[in-house]
Amino acid sequence: MLRGQRTWVFDQRPVIISTGTVGGPFEAEGLLTNDFDLLHGDLWLKQDSYEKAHKVLLEEACQKAMEKAELQKEQIQFLLAGDLINQITPTSFASKTIGAPYLGLFGACSTSMEGLALGAFLVNSKGAKYLLTGASSHNSAVEKQFRYPTEYGGQKPPTAQWTVTGAGAALLSDSGVGPRVTSATIGRVIDMGLSDPFNMGGAMAPAAVDTIEAHLKERNIDPSYYDLIVTGDLGQIGHEVSLDLLNNHGIKIDNNLYQDCGLMIYRQGQPVLAGASGAGCSATVVYGHLLNRMKKGEIKRLLVVATGALLSPLSFLQKETIPCIAHAVSIEYESE
Amino acid sequence: MLRGQRTWVFDQRPVIISTGTVGGPFEAEGLLTNDFDLLHGDLWLKQDSYEKAHKVLLEEACQKAMEKAELQKEQIQFLLAGDLINQITPTSFASKTIGAPYLGLFGACSTSMEGLALGAFLVNSKGAKYLLTGASSHNSAVEKQFRYPTEYGGQKPPTAQWTVTGAGAALLSDSGVGPRVTSATIGRVIDMGLSDPFNMGGAMAPAAVDTIEAHLKERNIDPSYYDLIVTGDLGQIGHEVSLDLLNNHGIKIDNNLYQDCGLMIYRQGQPVLAGASGAGCSATVVYGHLLNRMKKGEIKRLLVVATGALLSPLSFLQKETIPCIAHAVSIEYESE
Repeated sequence: MLRGQRTWVFDQRPVIISTGTVGGPFEAEGLLTNDFDLLHGDLWLKQDSYEKAHKVLLEEACQKAMEKAELQKEQIQFLLAGDLINQITPTSFASKTIGAPYLGLFGACSTSMEGLALGAFLVNSKGAKYLLTGASSHNSAVEKQFRYPTEYGGQKPPTAQWTVTGAGAALLSDSGVGPRVTSATIGRVIDMGLSDPFNMGGAMAPAAVDTIEAHLKERNIDPSYYDLIVTGDLGQIGHEVSLDLLNNHGIKIDNNLYQDCGLMIYRQGQPVLAGASGAGCSATVVYGHLLNRMKKGEIKRLLVVATGALLSPLSFLQKETIPCIAHAVSIEYESE
Repeated sequence: MLRGQRTWVFDQRPVIISTGTVGGPFEAEGLLTNDFDLLHGDLWLKQDSYEKAHKVLLEEACQKAMEKAELQKEQIQFLLAGDLINQITPTSFASKTIGAPYLGLFGACSTSMEGLALGAFLVNSKGAKYLLTGASSHNSAVEKQFRYPTEYGGQKPPTAQWTVTGAGAALLSDSGVGPRVTSATIGRVIDMGLSDPFNMGGAMAPAAVDTIEAHLKERNIDPSYYDLIVTGDLGQIGHEVSLDLLNNHGIKIDNNLYQDCGLMIYRQGQPVLAGASGAGCSATVVYGHLLNRMKKGEIKRLLVVATGALLSPLSFLQKETIPCIAHAVSIEYESE
């Protein structure tokens, strides 16, 4: 199973038998409207707090995945999930609704692939027949916590990113039809000394490159093995920095085959500055748009490199730098 | 591997080849002084913030475990750990120092056994040769975050518990000598509608009972299989509530063989009200005191049921109830 120091190769190739993706009003105006199972016109989702709305996003994403797979919640053995809110309460409260035994994760915006890597490991080694994994974020809940009340309308520099309101969940099983999880490389914390929370893409880029490099080396493959390598939420700045770094490290990667979820979800003209971010960014783009493209045959081999900035509002105020991480998971699909 | 709905039985019986435990000044006055590898006389640990001191606790616990096993940090494949601070920054910053690929966990005070369960699964299925797992808390960093500045000296009711300053880490391997991890049962979120953060033991008791019941049923064993069943940090109130509940559920358990880490660590007379709590509570008591007792032959079969209250300061202010969880891991030791 272990290949090299930190890559797992899954010989049983666990199957993503279904997914659920839910978005908010801003995502409904974006580029990937058709790839969401559910889009809400209102940020409150009929709840009386943004945190409760956040919780509902994940509940609905999990519910959609279960419905599509025609499974009842009693059949789900584990939920591996997390979010960006203090003590990941939206996920824990959603877990109460979902009812499955729960493994709470914190990987900031890398949580989607932390969960998929661990979930695939569990299924691959007969630790579960069915499990759910997912990640979510809510623009107003997250921005309020990390910055100011959103009503202040504080100005942001052009390097800042926009937190996605959305949740993505995947239902994994040891058998069935669907894209298969074939390997995963777990990230190390990389901290290049950057401390500007309004340029997290730049801070996270070295972590993405470190993980991509380890993944290719430990699997002994070339970037061209993949039809697409997609990072989580580097945004415009981080994407460019990571391309430069990959180039410096001698990793030749076709620019068209290297993209970022944070640059896919919104439409040109939406005021998102350097792009999208948030734990729901890679979760919704991968479990919605990209798996749909795989099912259409447009992508056969996909490497998702979800990036996370492991800071807190307090660590920022204490003038700490931003520790970053990236976890990579490969997903492959052949029509069966 | 999977037994029943949510129990893993580890046929390779991963070995805890070493542990590291670090405590603070209050723990140095407690009952388990001889079971800590390192005790600090000052809460600041020569750092300029409590959060940095918190980080150092985990770094030192991991360092001690590596020293005892005579391993270098480059040999450690993964670190699975977490804490109670927003965005688990102490653990993420410690992970940067430790250098190993990192899977961040959030299970509040149940994190110790969430990490040991997942870590044992990874080692059992050839996902790692060596990995570290641990949990930590720092009284001043945690109390400041969850309540008020500690300097306020706000009064607490007698049901409140005292957050442990300490970190415990275990180094797991697929071979070697030491206590072995034999099974794990993952907890569900249980919320009985309690909302008083000054009585978390009472809130967590039903979660502990739910997990113990599932564990015994899915492993098809009786409580007497174990020499000791120990909960994480139920404290005096939670311990009594859980005994009543176990009794109501028809689970006969010898009172002497059912204890709580939160009632072991401090001395009679220390002003800890209903007992100890915090992610470092079960981590230090189990990886220090209880494994030492196993090595002396006093305990052969141990079930650790780490309990967690998955609330946040914000969820409390928003008048939410407290979702609780408990993860159980069995550890067995036979002198070899």
